[in-house]
Amino acid sequence: MNTGELTDLGQQLRVDSVRAAAAAGSGHPTSSMSAADLMAVLLAHHLRYDFDRPAHPGNDRFVLSKGHASPLLYSAYKAAGAIDDEELLTFRKLGSRLEGHPTPQRLPWVETATGSLGQGLPVGVGIALAGKRLDRTGYRTWVLCGDSELAEGSVWEAAEHAGYEHLDNLTVIVDVNRLGQRGPTRHGHDLDAYARRFQAFDWHTIEVDGHDVDAVDRAYGEAASTKGQPTAILARTLKGKGVEGVQDREGLHGKPLPEAEEAIAALGGPRDIRVRVQEPPAARMLHSVHTGNFELPKWDKGEEVATRNAFGEALTALGTGRGDIVALDGEVGDSTRAEFFAKEHPDRYFECYIAEQQLVASAVGLASRGWVPYAATFAAFLTRAYDFIRMASVSGSGINLVGSHAGVAIGQDGPSQMGLEDLAMMRAVHGSTVLYPCDANQTARLVGAMAGLEGVRYLRTSRGESPVIYAPDEEFPVGGSKVLRSSGADRLTLVAAGVTVHEALAAAEALEQEGIAVRVIDLYSVKPVDRATLRRAAEETGCLVTVEDHHPEGGIGDAVLDAFTDGRPVPRLVRLGVRTMPGSASPEEQLRASGIDAESVAAAGRLLVEEAVVR
Amino acid sequence: MNTGELTDLGQQLRVDSVRAAAAAGSGHPTSSMSAADLMAVLLAHHLRYDFDRPAHPGNDRFVLSKGHASPLLYSAYKAAGAIDDEELLTFRKLGSRLEGHPTPQRLPWVETATGSLGQGLPVGVGIALAGKRLDRTGYRTWVLCGDSELAEGSVWEAAEHAGYEHLDNLTVIVDVNRLGQRGPTRHGHDLDAYARRFQAFDWHTIEVDGHDVDAVDRAYGEAASTKGQPTAILARTLKGKGVEGVQDREGLHGKPLPEAEEAIAALGGPRDIRVRVQEPPAARMLHSVHTGNFELPKWDKGEEVATRNAFGEALTALGTGRGDIVALDGEVGDSTRAEFFAKEHPDRYFECYIAEQQLVASAVGLASRGWVPYAATFAAFLTRAYDFIRMASVSGSGINLVGSHAGVAIGQDGPSQMGLEDLAMMRAVHGSTVLYPCDANQTARLVGAMAGLEGVRYLRTSRGESPVIYAPDEEFPVGGSKVLRSSGADRLTLVAAGVTVHEALAAAEALEQEGIAVRVIDLYSVKPVDRATLRRAAEETGCLVTVEDHHPEGGIGDAVLDAFTDGRPVPRLVRLGVRTMPGSASPEEQLRASGIDAESVAAAGRLLVEEAVVR
Repeated sequence: MNTGELTDLGQQLRVDSVRAAAAAGSGHPTSSMSAADLMAVLLAHHLRYDFDRPAHPGNDRFVLSKGHASPLLYSAYKAAGAIDDEELLTFRKLGSRLEGHPTPQRLPWVETATGSLGQGLPVGVGIALAGKRLDRTGYRTWVLCGDSELAEGSVWEAAEHAGYEHLDNLTVIVDVNRLGQRGPTRHGHDLDAYARRFQAFDWHTIEVDGHDVDAVDRAYGEAASTKGQPTAILARTLKGKGVEGVQDREGLHGKPLPEAEEAIAALGGPRDIRVRVQEPPAARMLHSVHTGNFELPKWDKGEEVATRNAFGEALTALGTGRGDIVALDGEVGDSTRAEFFAKEHPDRYFECYIAEQQLVASAVGLASRGWVPYAATFAAFLTRAYDFIRMASVSGSGINLVGSHAGVAIGQDGPSQMGLEDLAMMRAVHGSTVLYPCDANQTARLVGAMAGLEGVRYLRTSRGESPVIYAPDEEFPVGGSKVLRSSGADRLTLVAAGVTVHEALAAAEALEQEGIAVRVIDLYSVKPVDRATLRRAAEETGCLVTVEDHHPEGGIGDAVLDAFTDGRPVPRLVRLGVRTMPGSASPEEQLRASGIDAESVAAAGRLLVEEAVVR
Repeated sequence: MNTGELTDLGQQLRVDSVRAAAAAGSGHPTSSMSAADLMAVLLAHHLRYDFDRPAHPGNDRFVLSKGHASPLLYSAYKAAGAIDDEELLTFRKLGSRLEGHPTPQRLPWVETATGSLGQGLPVGVGIALAGKRLDRTGYRTWVLCGDSELAEGSVWEAAEHAGYEHLDNLTVIVDVNRLGQRGPTRHGHDLDAYARRFQAFDWHTIEVDGHDVDAVDRAYGEAASTKGQPTAILARTLKGKGVEGVQDREGLHGKPLPEAEEAIAALGGPRDIRVRVQEPPAARMLHSVHTGNFELPKWDKGEEVATRNAFGEALTALGTGRGDIVALDGEVGDSTRAEFFAKEHPDRYFECYIAEQQLVASAVGLASRGWVPYAATFAAFLTRAYDFIRMASVSGSGINLVGSHAGVAIGQDGPSQMGLEDLAMMRAVHGSTVLYPCDANQTARLVGAMAGLEGVRYLRTSRGESPVIYAPDEEFPVGGSKVLRSSGADRLTLVAAGVTVHEALAAAEALEQEGIAVRVIDLYSVKPVDRATLRRAAEETGCLVTVEDHHPEGGIGDAVLDAFTDGRPVPRLVRLGVRTMPGSASPEEQLRASGIDAESVAAAGRLLVEEAVVR
């Protein structure tokens, strides 16, 4: 296209953005209008993409980090012939694929859900890592960011990662329209302020007038041909560009234009330009899923093994068997044991340093390209990435997260290092799976099972050693549980997972000595929970004590109650968990202080059974 | 002190760090040894601090961002005479004040709990903001960071904030020892790599040999006299400095030295140097708590008001009455209505732009200086700051967080903007309070009540308007609830909060028409929960239906169960919540699609009552 045609295409994208928002009665047309020329040039001249084959391995990848500019994205889809005008006008309506913020669950051309700002570039870094280190089909990753979102630290984690990894297949286009939601940004139209920052993180930068289509065209060409560095294009634009009284004005964020018809006329009225988007080059994926037979590691009953070690060994074995498994570390691989995988499969190991948001975002990016990522750090530090985990579930992303050093059982390091909110956090994620093994063989099986699940999967591992209690060939279906002790005379059920399984077993032994028969359930699948087994235990024993190395809210106790919230009779229940703020102490002292050691469990069980009898 | 004395003091801090870790059998001596000279010079020549009066308004503020180097901190306390040698050797033991990572809950000289990396600088920015804009007593904030933690995005959020705000009362000292936990950092000893980054964010930088005490002394002096910019001192150091076989070696992170006795000898043996720390200048706090009478805003029953508006108005009124109230915004003040406060009290309003980690960290910093912060953004985006919220609770920090746009009721914007995990996340925080009002008068009262609570307080507000159902003089104690309908014939209790209160009321009305008398409880205090009222309802009506605009895990349904996990009989219960991934749709369509509108509530209640009868 020539200059005039590109300019016309930009105007069409503006007009369609205005129309879509007007039809919806909500949305962000002004944020779309600032970036319309940037999008027009990208679509017409630089993006290599087959809209009929979104899974084509040679396709470039485009991420709209400023997800609220969805009218622009959908207008571009229309210009590319991927959707029609009728669908464009379903924007934001019930059942429409065109949501307020784009998601891959609805649209095959969307790489990742956006709408929480500062996430597009980190996920784009994950995609570019896949492209450069694994897929190697030559695709380019383009990320369109707003200027406001550059205040998010996650953007600079991503900038650091991309610069260090020399991701020259990555371009970020920053739509510097100088206006955030509530007013001006910190740096206004000072492109140099942004350029200095990206340069400091070893990026190539280009400053450009974002409404000069020829200059933008040249900038994209320069970005694509820059070697050894990612490129940031800082584009000076005007919010609401092209409509007098709207352009560059505060107070018009996230609203349909006040006079849509007049605005459309001012923009030259509707057009019907169709863009022939460049075909991607022929390419095939390098990875094959099955690369050979493999066996998960096995341990003998009675061995003392930390579940974190079992995770490391199992993941390594899984990686030997499956070429699509990748591992990511947040600079604690020696603690989480992810480093075992690194030694065996260095080509599929991603060191993310101490940057948990980028750790999870890289996993999301890799998963979007068909890889099966396991990202591991301390359970406590996954809280740093909660917004990314939440958004991964909006994307329907299939990622495995592994949190080690769970609970007070870590001992002396104290509360900053203890995952005590992770079960609550992960259970509340839509469609998530939450697993918490108590021995090495169980851990290995669950590590293997996770790979085949949908959605966000979470495995909680422990720092200290614990005895192997299961045979190596035991099966652990997700959604199941294990009844470790039971008899017809059981008057109480103890429900535990992870480290507290061993405490519960000891408590049961003690109570048995006193003549109280006790059932013990290992609830290794915290979500989904094994309703049938819990209900049977409730019916047969009447009393339940749950015990967990986690704050009482949202963890195993609440998961157990999931089995009883459909109106059926509920057992008498006591929920043990960490109710005080721990300090430093030995693991044994910690369990005792929190009232989740064998003695405390036995005491709670005894009291519940006695009270049940008295009543 | 002269060069030799300073050097000796550094050696003493090393020796004591080695001794403390040896006594504990765990800890991070090598990370302490790299920064020992940096700490020695600070303590002896630059820090102005009265250890007998930690609340002295003129005291400088020191934050150990690399919290694992706690042996160094405690050794410094010993050198300053704040603790004795006997206490030093209680390090990491049960009941000791000297935890693995320092917390202000145990030690009066600690400003904020650290141990989750990348948090010290952001909180330091909050303290420096307080110093510069509010306290104005001339104190300086010193933050000692590791190099590994500079990979955290939160550090660059903080750098951006500090540079933009010209916080020349803030100095960050980076202990560039080139080794992280599992191996080398990205940039090793390339001080310039770090300096470039800080400079890009408008900081003054100084590169220095971190073991040259005179050079360090000059650098601190330069930092203290630099005007208009914060200063970053990049100090080249060696991990494990001073002990051959340990110094600059990998694989020795987080472990006592292998040969402690020999190491101590190599370091010149124990010393007993006492430092006379500089007195702070005489100073008094500028703020007074009560600046005048004020009245919370009031609305008439039947008015339609969004609770977010009520929050904005109530906070503004509170700010008029109390001079210690401050407000913080994450660039969405026009949405959360925090901007109402900005208009009235611009001097006490902190714009944090789109940087939720810094938003919460600033609140923690301000709270540490005695201010009462309210930090507001969308409920969904508070997930970005979960690690900071978790650590705030470890600190025992008194902060108010306000999350607007909760739940599917926001409508068209879609799931990225919907807070659907926030109640679970906030309930799981130790010692937190979680409030969720359903009308404007209730909101205003709760905004006022929050100010006087301990720990992390969370208020959840709604985007859309809802009818005022309470009289302006109604009281809403934290930990209470309101029974909105009841009779002796109730066969069912509906428990709701926020938007679902109105749905529950309509459902109760419909069921009443069918001859089913229904109790309705407004559970505005989600944590702590009103156990007595819930238990009474269970005893009197037998059946409970909970309904919440939140995922079912960890929210209101689980909060209700809190009342029944002490072994007492549990009512039959059905828990309604958002069980599918929402898309874009109108608020009414969203409530219906999620099964939490009046009709769905009535249907669930009817079924439960009928089943209860059948059984």
